[in-house]
Amino acid sequence: MKNTFGSAVSLTIFGESHGPAIGAVLDGLAAGLAVDPAYLALRMDRRRARGDGLSTARTEPDEIEFLSGVYNGRTTGTAVTLALRNTNTRSGDYAKTAALLRPGHADYTAFAKYEGWQDARGGGHFSGRLTAAAVAAGALCEHVLQTLGVRVYTHIAECAGIADAPLSSAAGLVLPEPEPGHFALLDPAREAPMQAAIRAAGADGDSVGGVLETIVTGVPAGVGEPWFDSVESELAHLMFSMPAVKGIEFGAGFALARMRGSEANDAFRMRGGRIVTATNRNGGVNGGIANGMPIVLRTAVKPTPSIYKRQDTVDYPARADASLQIAGRHDPCIVPRAAVVQNSLVAFGILDLLTVRYGTLAQKHGLPQPE
Amino acid sequence: MKNTFGSAVSLTIFGESHGPAIGAVLDGLAAGLAVDPAYLALRMDRRRARGDGLSTARTEPDEIEFLSGVYNGRTTGTAVTLALRNTNTRSGDYAKTAALLRPGHADYTAFAKYEGWQDARGGGHFSGRLTAAAVAAGALCEHVLQTLGVRVYTHIAECAGIADAPLSSAAGLVLPEPEPGHFALLDPAREAPMQAAIRAAGADGDSVGGVLETIVTGVPAGVGEPWFDSVESELAHLMFSMPAVKGIEFGAGFALARMRGSEANDAFRMRGGRIVTATNRNGGVNGGIANGMPIVLRTAVKPTPSIYKRQDTVDYPARADASLQIAGRHDPCIVPRAAVVQNSLVAFGILDLLTVRYGTLAQKHGLPQPE
Amino acid sequence: MKNTFGSAVSLTIFGESHGPAIGAVLDGLAAGLAVDPAYLALRMDRRRARGDGLSTARTEPDEIEFLSGVYNGRTTGTAVTLALRNTNTRSGDYAKTAALLRPGHADYTAFAKYEGWQDARGGGHFSGRLTAAAVAAGALCEHVLQTLGVRVYTHIAECAGIADAPLSSAAGLVLPEPEPGHFALLDPAREAPMQAAIRAAGADGDSVGGVLETIVTGVPAGVGEPWFDSVESELAHLMFSMPAVKGIEFGAGFALARMRGSEANDAFRMRGGRIVTATNRNGGVNGGIANGMPIVLRTAVKPTPSIYKRQDTVDYPARADASLQIAGRHDPCIVPRAAVVQNSLVAFGILDLLTVRYGTLAQKHGLPQPE
Amino acid sequence: MKNTFGSAVSLTIFGESHGPAIGAVLDGLAAGLAVDPAYLALRMDRRRARGDGLSTARTEPDEIEFLSGVYNGRTTGTAVTLALRNTNTRSGDYAKTAALLRPGHADYTAFAKYEGWQDARGGGHFSGRLTAAAVAAGALCEHVLQTLGVRVYTHIAECAGIADAPLSSAAGLVLPEPEPGHFALLDPAREAPMQAAIRAAGADGDSVGGVLETIVTGVPAGVGEPWFDSVESELAHLMFSMPAVKGIEFGAGFALARMRGSEANDAFRMRGGRIVTATNRNGGVNGGIANGMPIVLRTAVKPTPSIYKRQDTVDYPARADASLQIAGRHDPCIVPRAAVVQNSLVAFGILDLLTVRYGTLAQKHGLPQPE
Repeated sequence: MKNTFGSAVSLTIFGESHGPAIGAVLDGLAAGLAVDPAYLALRMDRRRARGDGLSTARTEPDEIEFLSGVYNGRTTGTAVTLALRNTNTRSGDYAKTAALLRPGHADYTAFAKYEGWQDARGGGHFSGRLTAAAVAAGALCEHVLQTLGVRVYTHIAECAGIADAPLSSAAGLVLPEPEPGHFALLDPAREAPMQAAIRAAGADGDSVGGVLETIVTGVPAGVGEPWFDSVESELAHLMFSMPAVKGIEFGAGFALARMRGSEANDAFRMRGGRIVTATNRNGGVNGGIANGMPIVLRTAVKPTPSIYKRQDTVDYPARADASLQIAGRHDPCIVPRAAVVQNSLVAFGILDLLTVRYGTLAQKHGLPQPE
Repeated sequence: MKNTFGSAVSLTIFGESHGPAIGAVLDGLAAGLAVDPAYLALRMDRRRARGDGLSTARTEPDEIEFLSGVYNGRTTGTAVTLALRNTNTRSGDYAKTAALLRPGHADYTAFAKYEGWQDARGGGHFSGRLTAAAVAAGALCEHVLQTLGVRVYTHIAECAGIADAPLSSAAGLVLPEPEPGHFALLDPAREAPMQAAIRAAGADGDSVGGVLETIVTGVPAGVGEPWFDSVESELAHLMFSMPAVKGIEFGAGFALARMRGSEANDAFRMRGGRIVTATNRNGGVNGGIANGMPIVLRTAVKPTPSIYKRQDTVDYPARADASLQIAGRHDPCIVPRAAVVQNSLVAFGILDLLTVRYGTLAQKHGLPQPE
Repeated sequence: MKNTFGSAVSLTIFGESHGPAIGAVLDGLAAGLAVDPAYLALRMDRRRARGDGLSTARTEPDEIEFLSGVYNGRTTGTAVTLALRNTNTRSGDYAKTAALLRPGHADYTAFAKYEGWQDARGGGHFSGRLTAAAVAAGALCEHVLQTLGVRVYTHIAECAGIADAPLSSAAGLVLPEPEPGHFALLDPAREAPMQAAIRAAGADGDSVGGVLETIVTGVPAGVGEPWFDSVESELAHLMFSMPAVKGIEFGAGFALARMRGSEANDAFRMRGGRIVTATNRNGGVNGGIANGMPIVLRTAVKPTPSIYKRQDTVDYPARADASLQIAGRHDPCIVPRAAVVQNSLVAFGILDLLTVRYGTLAQKHGLPQPE
Repeated sequence: MKNTFGSAVSLTIFGESHGPAIGAVLDGLAAGLAVDPAYLALRMDRRRARGDGLSTARTEPDEIEFLSGVYNGRTTGTAVTLALRNTNTRSGDYAKTAALLRPGHADYTAFAKYEGWQDARGGGHFSGRLTAAAVAAGALCEHVLQTLGVRVYTHIAECAGIADAPLSSAAGLVLPEPEPGHFALLDPAREAPMQAAIRAAGADGDSVGGVLETIVTGVPAGVGEPWFDSVESELAHLMFSMPAVKGIEFGAGFALARMRGSEANDAFRMRGGRIVTATNRNGGVNGGIANGMPIVLRTAVKPTPSIYKRQDTVDYPARADASLQIAGRHDPCIVPRAAVVQNSLVAFGILDLLTVRYGTLAQKHGLPQPE
């Protein structure tokens, strides 16, 4: 289904940037799960634009209203619908360029698909604004996963050409949550040069992209399906729903294409009575199914298509070559804000996969203990 | 659903390597589409092992039996079920190592998921053998797409460290179909060194991987959905159902993460009365929707996990460290054979997306003409 | 999916009676379809309670807010989300009886399913209030169908023991739309005795049910699928989602079980160059597929479970026999108001089936002309 | 999806009457479930035609071949594919009448849908022959349900105007399984008059229908969903996939439409520490969710459309009125054979609903015990 995904738990995303509201329907949660406003606020804050030269000056209160499925601070077991009002909208910025297709954006494909009836204001349905709904829904899933002993963690592996410390340096997998307003990095010392590089691109009227890496711990071996509902298929499907994602890899990913089998294979070993792998080049997934090791994935996030440099384009109604200089408020880099979006959608996907295997009630009553 | 994928057209894959048969159910085809045995045989031949030091010595006749949905050489409009008998099975090779988990394989995850009840012979449901069913189903889709003016083409972009000529060198997108028994390459001169490198790895008792690149031309702008059924989500979901795929990227993919926006954006231009992009770094997709340019994707295929070198592993029933030396017949490299599998699954995905937009009857009567 | 149904067009219903809002997400509409507030208001008015001794005294303004998918009075092609605020809520009436399971209601099954976490106020998710969202979504579908030449019409075939005129009396299928505030009847003269019978039951502290009949004209032969997506399967699935529906039949329905084949078969005849059937005992469907004749179905609607008579029941927390006398505001009969709900869900189902066959664009550009 | 249904467990039906084979794919079964050939044979025998004047003279060995998903007499956890070869086919009988649309059959709708490309031999995809695949798949589900303490039982409530004893007469719900070759009846004494009435209709060159009643015991309260995946929606969807079913009702069904609420409501009572209802007019379902009482449903099965009397019809290619006298081998009544088909599809639906709630592993390890 077009705007809906998931098997045992499903997520529907709706809204347009300058319409009345954006939101989500999250169906398939067990009843009685705690909804923690403080945790939600914390996650929404991660995605919030700050108007600080790193992200757009359009800031929204991002107040989540639960229209259904939550009562007295707990899920009721029915579909959770949440909405975020669109308040800080300045459609004038966009009206001027509606006829000129913005390169790298969905302006042309929206015309082709919707035959001119799309709500083009602020990118409409294609706006990054909709990811706020994904973050809110994902925060509910993350909270449930935490009670099940599953953690989902995303850091900026690389941005504007500056790399974070590698995951292998995360001793014993101590993954530090960033302080509010700071970048999600394993090594906080990389934040200053990363911000400087982003600001430099912004000062050029240009934009930059990066790589987001997510690690999921605590998923029992046996989750996922061999063919079309593999862990990788489910998560990749979700990741490519994020605007600007153009690539994904699991474990050693594309580097595996250049390894020999003797290097790519992860040897099995007994450790503390449990079966583990000595390395994790397969990213916690064998044959589409979780093997109990951390699930590791990386996405390629392209640079923000909205730049201030003059660009060649086409005037759509006139069917004529033209040039365009974009005004408005835009992030020179969405990678830092996208980290929490990716984390949220991965959390949703993992909760769906766990629920397929263990049933809805396990969300509330816990996963079976490993033998 | 676990072994089923697709919206308007759906594909179910079933079977075990040493069970009675493997096969597929392809549902949602229009009635009256020609089923061309010669074309099917050609595609099956591409995947066939040859026992030539490049691929496994297990060769199968790969005779496709249509159990339903085909009559007098045409689709009937009901579900097409096809089966391929498993004939050349030597389960003895595997029995010896059933207790020893093969690194890089799904042996352990199968134990965890199926609690010991899996049919482990020859890899069972996880065997590359099942991709024959995907090729057969995909060949039907490819044939339909050709009549609609859509072409899907896959070449080995890189294998065993040897790269093919880049796609940009394909002047006017003349994409040469390989001769039977030969590798799918833009530049046939790369075949000899590629084969030599694969053979060298095999002689070491080792294996190699590579990168497969697919290009789809003729998809009208407007196909695909903005959120969960994006062109990229649908195709990535399918690609990660292929055994051994650990990464995927569209257009410039991971390289986009290091570009600036001014470089990553594809400028729109008028050419011959049609809107095109001057470059194609977004791989034919903007905002999840086809923009009319060639759809370009690359997958990372890991090296065959079956190698002849001795490997550390675990004896599963004994829960003890052990070592393993794999016997049996295995490809030192599956990349050349996987090319047609990838092509088939992409073709299926594209046909599904077209059918969602234009309806089932359009498969038979043609796509609407662009304005 | 739990609260979502449909293939090419999908409908999600959400909300609780006394929560912030109830609503629906309708996904899969083409772009550019007119959204007519007058038509919507007319349909909502049909479902509105009037506090006239026939329906509950809880009246709501039923103002529909479109949160997404509608812009400048037209669909944008993305998911249409609509919400109706819950305003006139008097939860006090219900708090008193929360522990006492209301017979015929979902109180006990909600406890069993949601383990006590359900929002039980006013029936919560099980309230007839949610049908307002179905009516709003269905009205959009009805409007589209009208432009395609498809009409969906529902009348009260029987209520409180009083029958409407039979459909066969509808000469040339002139199906009169009821005046606002009046019952949907082929013969308006039946309204007075029907209302009297309902009022008599209400005066007894009791309630009554009835039979709703829907007729759909203009569906081209060939729509629907032979097995699981038959016209009857799709519509029955939707009808049993309506609260209080306990039976459905197509054409002559249960009477067919007592006919001989020579009576049950509808002879084919040529009429004005088109193939028709001389009778319509199969209700417009052969082998699950529309045959071009009117699709006719009837549902059995049970009497409102909320009655004022004292009833035996169980005190759930105490696990003890008890008795219950329901207070609050309730319809002695929901059949007249349910007519428009049934019409709406049938309209949605038919639009989905048409879209599967003809594609999304056909919603806007019209169905192919019959040969 | 067209030929596929189900959420956590899915069923795909494929095949044509005179094609190579008919079959089914049953996906979502846990691994390690016993596959009992004797039980399968027993269920297949129930559906078998006997050529005894009650059912068609076309008898098939109905040998089930498992193509996948079963190994050493147990499920492997992957998709179970089963096929039944079509052997006893006499297509000549049909060739003569291919142009003449058989009233009550899907001949015309198949032409409309498949534009003449359908495999019309023996009814093709619309043949009752396909129900053999449903019986085989359902037998696997029934066997699993039995180990979970859930029983599904179907009897002929009425056939050819002769009624079975009412369910209320089944003291303590002792539901007798019929002897091989005999009708499924609560009161075996009704078999002789029922058979005589069927034979009488057959002797007239005519056919008869009936009513099938299914009762499901042991389903825990809380199974099913409030809106679109209600117990009634799921089962009705499946029942209308059966050829010839034109109506369904739950509990008192259509009779509820004529009751008052005080009569229709089932009072709750404590019995042996458990919550039960004193009556079961709601058929074990409140608000779409199982309430722990037996789930009771009845379907209306129309008389076999193949009769030997001369009938008015249309010559399809000629587009002209014509008349038709059907030859071939046909059941004067399919109700007795359809009983096991209905039982099988209900069993599949119940297993799917249980799996959604309790997870896949519960199929093997048991349902949670009620408090």
